[in-house]
Amino acid sequence: MDEFQLIEHFFRPQGKGPGVLIGPGDDAAVLQPSEGCQLVMTMDTLVSGRHFPEDFSAFDIGWRSLAVNLSDLAAMGAVPRWCLLSLSLPEADEHWLKEFCEGFYALAQEEGITLVGGDMVRGALQITVQATGEVRAGRALLRSGARTGDRICIGGVPGEAALGLRQWQAGVRDGDAVASFTRPRPQMKLGKKLRGMASACIDISDGLLADLQHILDESGRGVAQAPGAIIKLSSLPNSTAIESEPDMDIRQKAQLSGGDDYLLLFTLPSMFNVPQGCYEIGRVTTESGLRVLDENGAPIDVNVKGWTHF
Amino acid sequence: MDEFQLIEHFFRPQGKGPGVLIGPGDDAAVLQPSEGCQLVMTMDTLVSGRHFPEDFSAFDIGWRSLAVNLSDLAAMGAVPRWCLLSLSLPEADEHWLKEFCEGFYALAQEEGITLVGGDMVRGALQITVQATGEVRAGRALLRSGARTGDRICIGGVPGEAALGLRQWQAGVRDGDAVASFTRPRPQMKLGKKLRGMASACIDISDGLLADLQHILDESGRGVAQAPGAIIKLSSLPNSTAIESEPDMDIRQKAQLSGGDDYLLLFTLPSMFNVPQGCYEIGRVTTESGLRVLDENGAPIDVNVKGWTHF
Repeated sequence: MDEFQLIEHFFRPQGKGPGVLIGPGDDAAVLQPSEGCQLVMTMDTLVSGRHFPEDFSAFDIGWRSLAVNLSDLAAMGAVPRWCLLSLSLPEADEHWLKEFCEGFYALAQEEGITLVGGDMVRGALQITVQATGEVRAGRALLRSGARTGDRICIGGVPGEAALGLRQWQAGVRDGDAVASFTRPRPQMKLGKKLRGMASACIDISDGLLADLQHILDESGRGVAQAPGAIIKLSSLPNSTAIESEPDMDIRQKAQLSGGDDYLLLFTLPSMFNVPQGCYEIGRVTTESGLRVLDENGAPIDVNVKGWTHF
Repeated sequence: MDEFQLIEHFFRPQGKGPGVLIGPGDDAAVLQPSEGCQLVMTMDTLVSGRHFPEDFSAFDIGWRSLAVNLSDLAAMGAVPRWCLLSLSLPEADEHWLKEFCEGFYALAQEEGITLVGGDMVRGALQITVQATGEVRAGRALLRSGARTGDRICIGGVPGEAALGLRQWQAGVRDGDAVASFTRPRPQMKLGKKLRGMASACIDISDGLLADLQHILDESGRGVAQAPGAIIKLSSLPNSTAIESEPDMDIRQKAQLSGGDDYLLLFTLPSMFNVPQGCYEIGRVTTESGLRVLDENGAPIDVNVKGWTHF
């Protein structure tokens, strides 16, 4: 099959969905936005060997390439609508494409997002997905609203994906940590719930501390004094996946600086209860800077810098 | 500079524009669509050495990566609004990035499109741009409306870019043909003018005949008899750039099958005059198939297949 036949075969059938007037097959897609809504748009590229292991299954690559974009929409509190996919492949391997599509569409159907276009090129294995969501006017969750006294909360147990990656690299192919790493679940429902509650929100893709720093940076723009944060180590939630790692140092590093969790990290004004399934892990402070306190309340030395793309 | 600093330096200042509520710097952009409009979305990836020569200037790469996407919007009759950019670079070369941005922003400002997000990754040199335009509800130009008797028209002189590529490969770095190749100009104004006039429209990126075939394919879906087309060689417009090629065979091939022209190719019902600057080159026929006639009206053998991405 050539490019046109491959697109016809794998991508055209999925072009039908709510608001899709013209899907794949024309110069561009034509879409009907919802009245009273604003658009939320994100785009991420995954590079083989950098954003996922070279021996990842095509299913997991398809899943992940959509998941990381959906997670950005979740962090804005948006409802997913449409996506575009650009696939750069060393060769047109139909078996690989079939598996890739199974992973991509499994998550797409679960979250109600429709693939409406894109392209396929010959090149190094890279996948770019652009995703569009909608949110009622003025209701998007931003990174910039954190205020002194807000609690810092997280939508699950951080660090599992980082431990999963370690295990993957050691040849392990099953277990909770590996599953957290290979099949990240964007927190779409939590994102919607946080609209009108959270003062700031981000998804953890670079690491807890690094992404918290992004919230502090954005919340500090144009403010006389940039806010800071305190995180209590003892408040970090645990799981069997985390506890299966005996080395406390590795565990702590995974929880504070590991990427790929795609959990929502948010700040919550005092009037709201911590949503079910979420954990309070710290507080926004007047004093600038990001501090992590150990069990005795003493600050520990941590590397805030998480995953960098370059 | 790391990824965040590079994004801050090169991409953040451009995030302000009409309808941009949140630009680069959050998990996703937040955008205000226009009332009564539908969205038109496209996304294309350019791979170094495949979609542009490896010795292309960063300025020209930036220009082209946006131009090819704008051309898709033009082919739908859409008004450009917002774009996202994903840059895969082997290294974070600030000088290269500066030049790339100059090319990208030069065209973006000319056409009134605002960069609102995207990302930057380390990998083989590839550029993905996603562009969103708007069109009043139901007014998008599609590939699917060509009917028997419609004239086939083109928005300029085809083949210049293909000859420009040949010259580039032979070491030529100036002249009209090379300029057509290095700085394609998406026909945004023509696209807007054709709304409510053209029965079908496409931009020539794969080659005149290949793209005309796409119109015929889409116009033949769900119709009892798929339409065909006749193109008259003698009707193809010429230019000094075309005439500078002495070999008639090369010239003809460039005009019929050369890619990269990014001119609009459209079908026009008889009630409308051919717009200024456009040329009538053939006609949609009841008889299926695509035929090219020479000066004496005899069909010539041509390879319809143009550029394929795989």
